Amino acid sequence: MRFDRVWLNARLATLKGDGLGIVEDGAVAAKDGRIAFVGPTQDMPAGWDAEERIDCEGRWITPGLVDCHTHLVYGGDRAHEFELRLNGASYEEIARAGGGIVSTVKATRAASENELVASALPRLDHLMAEGCTTVEIKSGYGLDLETEARSLRAARRLGEERPVSVTTTFLGAHALPPEANGDKDAFIEKVCREMLPALAREGLADAVDAFCEGIAFSPAQTARVFDAAKALGLKTKLHADQLSNLHGAKLAADHGAVSADHLEYTDEEGAAAMAKAGTVAVLLPGAFYMLRETKVPPIAAFRKAGTRMALATDCNPGTSPLTSLLLTMNMGATLFRMNVEECIAGVTREAARALGKLNEIGTLEPGKSCDLAIWNIERPAELVYRIGFNPLHARVWRGQ
Amino acid sequence: MRFDRVWLNARLATLKGDGLGIVEDGAVAAKDGRIAFVGPTQDMPAGWDAEERIDCEGRWITPGLVDCHTHLVYGGDRAHEFELRLNGASYEEIARAGGGIVSTVKATRAASENELVASALPRLDHLMAEGCTTVEIKSGYGLDLETEARSLRAARRLGEERPVSVTTTFLGAHALPPEANGDKDAFIEKVCREMLPALAREGLADAVDAFCEGIAFSPAQTARVFDAAKALGLKTKLHADQLSNLHGAKLAADHGAVSADHLEYTDEEGAAAMAKAGTVAVLLPGAFYMLRETKVPPIAAFRKAGTRMALATDCNPGTSPLTSLLLTMNMGATLFRMNVEECIAGVTREAARALGKLNEIGTLEPGKSCDLAIWNIERPAELVYRIGFNPLHARVWRGQ
Ligand SMILES: [Zn+2]
Ligand SMILES: [Zn+2]
Repeated sequence: MRFDRVWLNARLATLKGDGLGIVEDGAVAAKDGRIAFVGPTQDMPAGWDAEERIDCEGRWITPGLVDCHTHLVYGGDRAHEFELRLNGASYEEIARAGGGIVSTVKATRAASENELVASALPRLDHLMAEGCTTVEIKSGYGLDLETEARSLRAARRLGEERPVSVTTTFLGAHALPPEANGDKDAFIEKVCREMLPALAREGLADAVDAFCEGIAFSPAQTARVFDAAKALGLKTKLHADQLSNLHGAKLAADHGAVSADHLEYTDEEGAAAMAKAGTVAVLLPGAFYMLRETKVPPIAAFRKAGTRMALATDCNPGTSPLTSLLLTMNMGATLFRMNVEECIAGVTREAARALGKLNEIGTLEPGKSCDLAIWNIERPAELVYRIGFNPLHARVWRGQ
Repeated sequence: MRFDRVWLNARLATLKGDGLGIVEDGAVAAKDGRIAFVGPTQDMPAGWDAEERIDCEGRWITPGLVDCHTHLVYGGDRAHEFELRLNGASYEEIARAGGGIVSTVKATRAASENELVASALPRLDHLMAEGCTTVEIKSGYGLDLETEARSLRAARRLGEERPVSVTTTFLGAHALPPEANGDKDAFIEKVCREMLPALAREGLADAVDAFCEGIAFSPAQTARVFDAAKALGLKTKLHADQLSNLHGAKLAADHGAVSADHLEYTDEEGAAAMAKAGTVAVLLPGAFYMLRETKVPPIAAFRKAGTRMALATDCNPGTSPLTSLLLTMNMGATLFRMNVEECIAGVTREAARALGKLNEIGTLEPGKSCDLAIWNIERPAELVYRIGFNPLHARVWRGQ
């Protein structure tokens, strides 16, 4: 057996199965960008050979990290609004100063595809510098067909500019644009009849998302978006139960969504429905932290029901300008009391599951894409324990 | 006038005076490691010349960041303890598993000077990668003369291994070592009569610190340490009012300490005493975050009294394994509601003041050390607003 590259003398957290899948004296071999062998060194096939051998000197290898919920592509930023708010400005004053999501929509509509790519690249680079090999990117700051399409094209472009896998999500039902004059039903109709089919035709969206909340769209409007997405064969996701319990988790589960995200207000019934449907709970502690929320997602209910939990940055300019999956793990532990295994699985195996891509990424198993993160650590817990520190030694994407 | 290096086409936040000291079209010039000119480009001396000219292309320059409270040098880590705690282990179980500060003391005593340097370097490198040019490092995990001296020597060595200024603080009165058998007075006597004079003779300590708290040392014991330090001409600092109000802030002020640190439980009287004495309030949101505290330091009282506020990482293995001053600023804003100016001043001007080194560092002013951080940002607020992102373009220490 001749491999392209072999990583030897490593400790592995394969994430295979349910735990961390630890192998103390392990090796990983790549062939044509895929994992051709992974396991104890002594189990390597007799007579193996390789183009290149890499001595990991006892370092730990995990699957490349997966950020399964970001809004990485947008125009402008909201630093000034953040500053005003700290100085005690009211929401009205901030709106008058051009703040809020409307300001991001305006800046995104004014930005060219190249500008959207250029402004997102430093954010992507920071995620990648911490071992991220797959990132989901949502639209949702265009809110018209042209800008939503441009945003999703910019997202696809990011995956060409950098050695990273990008999956795209159309989030037309994110907020109501100013020109909709408050008519949510008419806007949802436009999302379903005009935007979604056009974007699907162009192959720009791998999944469809919506924001189900009092300040956004109702469960009935969300269900219409889900039906339209499923009719086009697209996966669905949902921003659910972040600020109140509209039973979004159950709605997502009932529609077979791959994930429901946020979930601070989800109840036991919602958790059980998600577990049954295989809908992953994507928890977003960055937004919880930034908004100084006090209601923690129902971790105990998820554990009891067997709901899978992922963690993501929710990187966005308004409520989570966060570009670190390591810090996201620490926040998952510190703020949500998730344990070390849950946090690490949350940005690898479960994040892959939340994208419907567990057959391809998220664990170290033969046949999967050879996406690796190699760490200067003595034990996996260090990835969660440290705050504002990057122990990445090397990052491998598709075997390279 | 011939300079060594000149940074042109920059926007400056000089931090001179009380605000950010913004100069829109600015320049900085270095001569022999010191700032020879700083200000509007048009005010540069006629006929100036330079060995090297650097075009900053509109980037922002701030003073190099100052981390004025760290415990950067220690043996071992506490990742396993963190993991056990998340899994629901009790304090007894953790103690049985070798956790708690005693485990760090044990590991520090077992480590050679080289080992202490080697384990601290990645932490220091992470601080420096974000523009930190001065770092304070405390001892306090040795608790015997030999190990305290070795820790402080390791701290000094860090400043030789890297282009960064290190100031050292002897924190013998950090915790009671096991061999003291619960006799705090006898241990304080040892700190004052044996350790302090020996360390001062060797020039190992720039300042002396103590932990005044129910679980540590009493105000009377703290006062003895202060008196001994002052008799040797050393500056004093205090871990005060973190978990309860023992009036440590006032004690520190009454003794003319350069800073009192933590201060969650400080009252208005303490804040006023600090303002009057010029004792800086060093706030440590990393420990507040990690310990999931809910009592925020009295920011309003500090503002009202005119107490100066600094921010620091408190980098330590038990309660704040944090190595990011940028994240510290974000936590100061998000958790403590400090505004953008306060956060930026907190890791520059006020941090320098908390070390008694404002005449040397902390602002961009002629004659000071030319320590600069050059940032890829559009406005200073971005340094505080972003979470887990490093926009540093370049770092300059002593003009280079
Ligand atoms: Zn989101
Ligand atoms: Zn401390």
